[in-house]
Amino acid sequence: MGAGAALAVSPAWTSASAAVTASGKATPAFYRHKIGDIEVTQLSDGTAQFPLADNFVRNAPKADVQAALAEAHLPIDKATVFFNPMMLNTSGKLVLIDTGSGPGPSSAVGQLMANMNAAGVEGKTVDVVIISHFHPDHINGLRLADGSLAFPNAEIKVPAAEWTFWMNDENMAKAPDAVKGLFANARKVFDKMGDRITHYEMDKELAPGLTPFATPGHTPGHTSYALQSGAGKLIIQSDITNNPALFLRNPDWQVMYDMNPQQAVATRRAFFDRASADKTLIAGFHFPFPCLGYVEKDGANFRLSPATWQTTI
Amino acid sequence: MGAGAALAVSPAWTSASAAVTASGKATPAFYRHKIGDIEVTQLSDGTAQFPLADNFVRNAPKADVQAALAEAHLPIDKATVFFNPMMLNTSGKLVLIDTGSGPGPSSAVGQLMANMNAAGVEGKTVDVVIISHFHPDHINGLRLADGSLAFPNAEIKVPAAEWTFWMNDENMAKAPDAVKGLFANARKVFDKMGDRITHYEMDKELAPGLTPFATPGHTPGHTSYALQSGAGKLIIQSDITNNPALFLRNPDWQVMYDMNPQQAVATRRAFFDRASADKTLIAGFHFPFPCLGYVEKDGANFRLSPATWQTTI
Repeated sequence: MGAGAALAVSPAWTSASAAVTASGKATPAFYRHKIGDIEVTQLSDGTAQFPLADNFVRNAPKADVQAALAEAHLPIDKATVFFNPMMLNTSGKLVLIDTGSGPGPSSAVGQLMANMNAAGVEGKTVDVVIISHFHPDHINGLRLADGSLAFPNAEIKVPAAEWTFWMNDENMAKAPDAVKGLFANARKVFDKMGDRITHYEMDKELAPGLTPFATPGHTPGHTSYALQSGAGKLIIQSDITNNPALFLRNPDWQVMYDMNPQQAVATRRAFFDRASADKTLIAGFHFPFPCLGYVEKDGANFRLSPATWQTTI
Repeated sequence: MGAGAALAVSPAWTSASAAVTASGKATPAFYRHKIGDIEVTQLSDGTAQFPLADNFVRNAPKADVQAALAEAHLPIDKATVFFNPMMLNTSGKLVLIDTGSGPGPSSAVGQLMANMNAAGVEGKTVDVVIISHFHPDHINGLRLADGSLAFPNAEIKVPAAEWTFWMNDENMAKAPDAVKGLFANARKVFDKMGDRITHYEMDKELAPGLTPFATPGHTPGHTSYALQSGAGKLIIQSDITNNPALFLRNPDWQVMYDMNPQQAVATRRAFFDRASADKTLIAGFHFPFPCLGYVEKDGANFRLSPATWQTTI
């Protein structure tokens, strides 16, 4: 055993090795798994926490919301929102679904590019970006801090219905003031992107194995996806629910971001009824990283059973 | 926007970027978080899956075990066992708790050193190794494939009660044949380690913030730990339960590895009663990575609510 075995170590914390300083850094938040032949990487854009507004849930008493947060061991005085784009390597093409908030004033979000880099991928190697809907936390990451393109070689595929809604001047004119900013933001992000933007329709394959389907309510053109390869299947729900501790546990609750709340509730209930019956693996943009789980019925409501982390792929 | 904006991208998958090959590699499984001032790193040693023996759970029908596995979305024809040592950076000292199975014939386990390296730590910088009990998946990682020490500068702290039990020749002589191998293994692993091994007692601080407490049943000297720093608290349960989908959901079930099954059940029920009442964060060596969660009462049984992944520390 050589010299190592001869080393007498005092019990009083006097090891021969130099002290290692604490890292102080969060673990890079990327997670690879496979759906059939497709390598999937879940990527965190970070977590936002902000004071819990009385209307964060439009139609539930704040005390009930806080009880649900406590049940999930989350802070009860804050809204906690997780952001998780994801990436597919399918038929040799790198496909990114949604982009996070991009570089911003807070380091709590805008972490997509760092986590993608940690996973060994640079923005310039992304071939296709698919957008689920036009809220800022899904599209603003298309641009870097200087306004240049974060994915300069990528085609950008957007839902045709979403484009039609947000680029319509009448819709913008009649929107409430709080929503007018979202119209302006979408127009700014997509400005001068020219024919790198293409519009996609529902229920037609968008990338090998990936088929979009309409889940309106959160926004008019809000889109989810079925990913299938061999026997593997994953449903990418996008924003059918925000934080599952609130809106999957209580699908009738309306998050302030749902643009048509009644339609969003109907979409949510129909989707979760099906997902729980089918026992399909679900990815949720606003689930906690690594944002994969199974929806389980719990009386009239649901719960999320997080998927087991795979240590080999 | 320069040349990038001028690049016309055909919708027919003809991006300018070279195809990126799939990584084919699992994400390094380490996860950092903080308990008060102490930086804690959960580290996976991998996951084993093997045919589900009729007596994997000694006192439950196989069909019931398979139903519990199905509820957890795990394969029902296999036992799935997760292995997760962990590391503390406390007062400038690197403390490793348990070591995994070490290099072995299967790449499914023995991943500790690779994951530790990914977290920026080499074996030689570990100052202290604390062992919870003497089963091979906790001690065999003390040695590399050539038999040399994996943590050559570390003091190795073992429970005095565990040492007394396993090093007693009478206990070995009267042990069932299946258990005799465990005695031989422990003796081989600890052979010629001399005074780098020290024996610890319960309820006395073992490292800054870390206090062991006795949780016998799984083995005679099986040890758990309370980690406390400032307002932060973590209970490291070690092997009070194996796979929580089976033995936390059904605490009366006896895994074949519990050496005194009745005592293990009593220890388990008492511990989970307390953990669910206190809502304390729990780390479990055999929980799925990152092996942190909260124990919740569910009628006469319990369930594990996995902790939320923190994207900042």
